[in-house]
Amino acid sequence: MRAARGRAKRVIVTLFVNPSQFNNAEDLAKYPRDEASDIARLEAEHVDLLYAPSVEEMYPEGFVTKVSVSRLSEGLCGEHRPGHFDGVATVVTKLLLQTQANAAFFGEKDFQQLSVIRRLARDLDIPVEIVGVPTVREADGLAMSSRNVRLSEAARKLAPAMTEALSAAGAAIQAGQPVAAATDAARSALLKGGYSEVEYLELRDAETLEPIFELDRPARLLAAGWLDGVRLIDNIAVLPMR
Amino acid sequence: MRAARGRAKRVIVTLFVNPSQFNNAEDLAKYPRDEASDIARLEAEHVDLLYAPSVEEMYPEGFVTKVSVSRLSEGLCGEHRPGHFDGVATVVTKLLLQTQANAAFFGEKDFQQLSVIRRLARDLDIPVEIVGVPTVREADGLAMSSRNVRLSEAARKLAPAMTEALSAAGAAIQAGQPVAAATDAARSALLKGGYSEVEYLELRDAETLEPIFELDRPARLLAAGWLDGVRLIDNIAVLPMR
Repeated sequence: MRAARGRAKRVIVTLFVNPSQFNNAEDLAKYPRDEASDIARLEAEHVDLLYAPSVEEMYPEGFVTKVSVSRLSEGLCGEHRPGHFDGVATVVTKLLLQTQANAAFFGEKDFQQLSVIRRLARDLDIPVEIVGVPTVREADGLAMSSRNVRLSEAARKLAPAMTEALSAAGAAIQAGQPVAAATDAARSALLKGGYSEVEYLELRDAETLEPIFELDRPARLLAAGWLDGVRLIDNIAVLPMR
Repeated sequence: MRAARGRAKRVIVTLFVNPSQFNNAEDLAKYPRDEASDIARLEAEHVDLLYAPSVEEMYPEGFVTKVSVSRLSEGLCGEHRPGHFDGVATVVTKLLLQTQANAAFFGEKDFQQLSVIRRLARDLDIPVEIVGVPTVREADGLAMSSRNVRLSEAARKLAPAMTEALSAAGAAIQAGQPVAAATDAARSALLKGGYSEVEYLELRDAETLEPIFELDRPARLLAAGWLDGVRLIDNIAVLPMR
């Protein structure tokens, strides 16, 4: 909201928990929603308009259209959440066209999502500028996420292990350590740090998201893992050293 | 163009032979193109702008996005041209967003295409009105089509058999003849009339394109067939009698 306010005279916030991007019914049911508290925050930020459509408004009877972005949607979260990015691509196309915004702001925390959205806006010629906003973090480094409230107090203390593991691996890769050694060490650190599973922890091309094994261009180190029954993700930029 | 001129101050024509909607390489190669003659026609109609992008402009390197409209794209031409309507849906989404037209005009001759486009514009909230334009016909009833120039002189004389068969079947259905009997007779008439194959000849709901077997709502009778190595299509409205 603040990034948008810095760029635009009028700011719209869209708020929609999109069923078509949840591949897991339990995750959708458990997804934290608190519209009253959201509205209080928007008011504090002097947002001009909240657009919070119902599921029936977004997907009326007879709705049959799907937007899909191949390649970028494959691998990483796409591999573990089948259909997820088709759901994201379709709903974001709708929101961009409904709001007719000049610029739209998406957090880098969902980096693969941001990449998919950049690509679809370009490929479909949607007249909008897609702006990535750096991940907002808690004091201990944990990336802010609606899902964080589902962590127990003990798990919440362990959660920053993901950010720490990514930072350490990114620094090691920049310092010349082989990519595979660095990512293996980061996976081990996550499991040692209390995570029950690491879905992925990989270095990718920062634009195409293709796997890379040498730091010869701007890259992104991305991870997803499970802690205390909650799925958490994070990512950091890894830039070649000059 | 005339329908658009009747509704709008400014008229744009888009001219693009879209490779991604040709499932058959030979059909694409043989597809008649005559930009000079097209331009002369646009000038005669006082069109304000011709938009004729290159394939590279429409699909630059890295292009990976697809729009698909399920249900409406299945059956009829969709069954015989796999991937065709995904190609249509994707390119039309791009053209609508590139031109930012307030209204877009499509011929009823490609009725399934028109139905797919109406649906995608509605589902994706593209701010455009889709207008169907009645099929323009030659003096003998043959629906105008770029492909007609590929017919031999002899075949050209036989071609109107499709329109005639559809009209006869439509009238018979309106008069109470069972749908299957009327469509069977129309298929036979087409084959007798010189067509080498009838891909489909079916009565469908005029909005959802679902197969219907009783004329209890507005319907469309649609056909595709091969004549002289050329694939021709046509369709007519069949309305319930009061």
